Amino acid sequence: MECEVNDMTQPLIEFWYEFASTYSYLLAMLIEALAAEAGVNIAWRPFLLGPIFHAQGWTSSPFNLYPAKGRYMVRDLERIATERGLRFALPTPFPQNSVAAARLAIAGCEEGWVARFTRAVYAVQFADGAGIADRGALGTILTSLRLDSGRLLSRIEEPQIKDRLKQQTAEAQARSIFGAPSFIVGDELFWGDDRLEQAVAWARRT
Amino acid sequence: MECEVNDMTQPLIEFWYEFASTYSYLLAMLIEALAAEAGVNIAWRPFLLGPIFHAQGWTSSPFNLYPAKGRYMVRDLERIATERGLRFALPTPFPQNSVAAARLAIAGCEEGWVARFTRAVYAVQFADGAGIADRGALGTILTSLRLDSGRLLSRIEEPQIKDRLKQQTAEAQARSIFGAPSFIVGDELFWGDDRLEQAVAWARRT
Repeated sequence: MECEVNDMTQPLIEFWYEFASTYSYLLAMLIEALAAEAGVNIAWRPFLLGPIFHAQGWTSSPFNLYPAKGRYMVRDLERIATERGLRFALPTPFPQNSVAAARLAIAGCEEGWVARFTRAVYAVQFADGAGIADRGALGTILTSLRLDSGRLLSRIEEPQIKDRLKQQTAEAQARSIFGAPSFIVGDELFWGDDRLEQAVAWARRT
Repeated sequence: MECEVNDMTQPLIEFWYEFASTYSYLLAMLIEALAAEAGVNIAWRPFLLGPIFHAQGWTSSPFNLYPAKGRYMVRDLERIATERGLRFALPTPFPQNSVAAARLAIAGCEEGWVARFTRAVYAVQFADGAGIADRGALGTILTSLRLDSGRLLSRIEEPQIKDRLKQQTAEAQARSIFGAPSFIVGDELFWGDDRLEQAVAWARRT
């Protein structure tokens, strides 16, 4: 599924993201502008990190499991957000359950609104520091985008949507993704907010 | 201990590094040139990550504990090294026991040769992919720097040197360091090879 790719003649970067991931937020807000400037295309690839973390024995976010790392992450994000003109606030609890948001993003891939939905979910969660786990919050986001929240919230339980998210998560794992955000150019994997530039350079070279 | 700081009128960046750390290698080879260009001073701060990893329940490098991350790290380092005109090879076993090298670096802090010793140890370990754990390898490195390897190898067992390394490692932990390389400017912590630029900007602003 090459989600929201407009121009197949340009080099392609797959943007793999997890809604509960703070560093994915930083990227998601700016990636389309950066990609357009660089003349590359972005394929939006929402997936779930939970099953991948579970498979390596983690029961929560590494930022909760390793408190020094978690405290650093907050400070690091505050600094970077300020530098990029973004706000940053952590929701409670962190991480938020992101399954419903990710299923909606799969629907957005089919229907052509995944990019703006993704940015809206991240803004609510990490600029406002509000929850995105429940249908109430997601319905408000969909409505703010002038999408039909009643119809779309019912898609969350569609077996086909559930299956596509599971497949996408399995594909992430099969392609060696272990964190988010990740970028893939061909077979080349790049991990972390600070690796977009490298991924862009790689995409332009190949 | 402000190790190898020449000009106390310039802003200061503490460079905290672990000899077994691959990403510290990338930084160590270039940090003095980058700092000189930016008009900041570097304080070399060797420490041991082992006790810090142990305290959070890790028995080896996270790159061994999490194989997908380990495979990614090698590829990431190969790409970055190529970009920076450096070679990269992983020694066997990885990580190398770095205690003797770190104790020698403490001696180098006292005697004024820590920077060139650090670069030489990293070059042997991660450009040539050779071991740095034993006294034979370290003696060869010291000799190549025209240092008195006989006298210095005996310093590895000096109680005062051992204590200073322990203190420095305890200080790293107390100041919330959880990985390497780390940079500290005042009370501000930056983690990772890709955060030097931010640390430099912070140092120049304060």
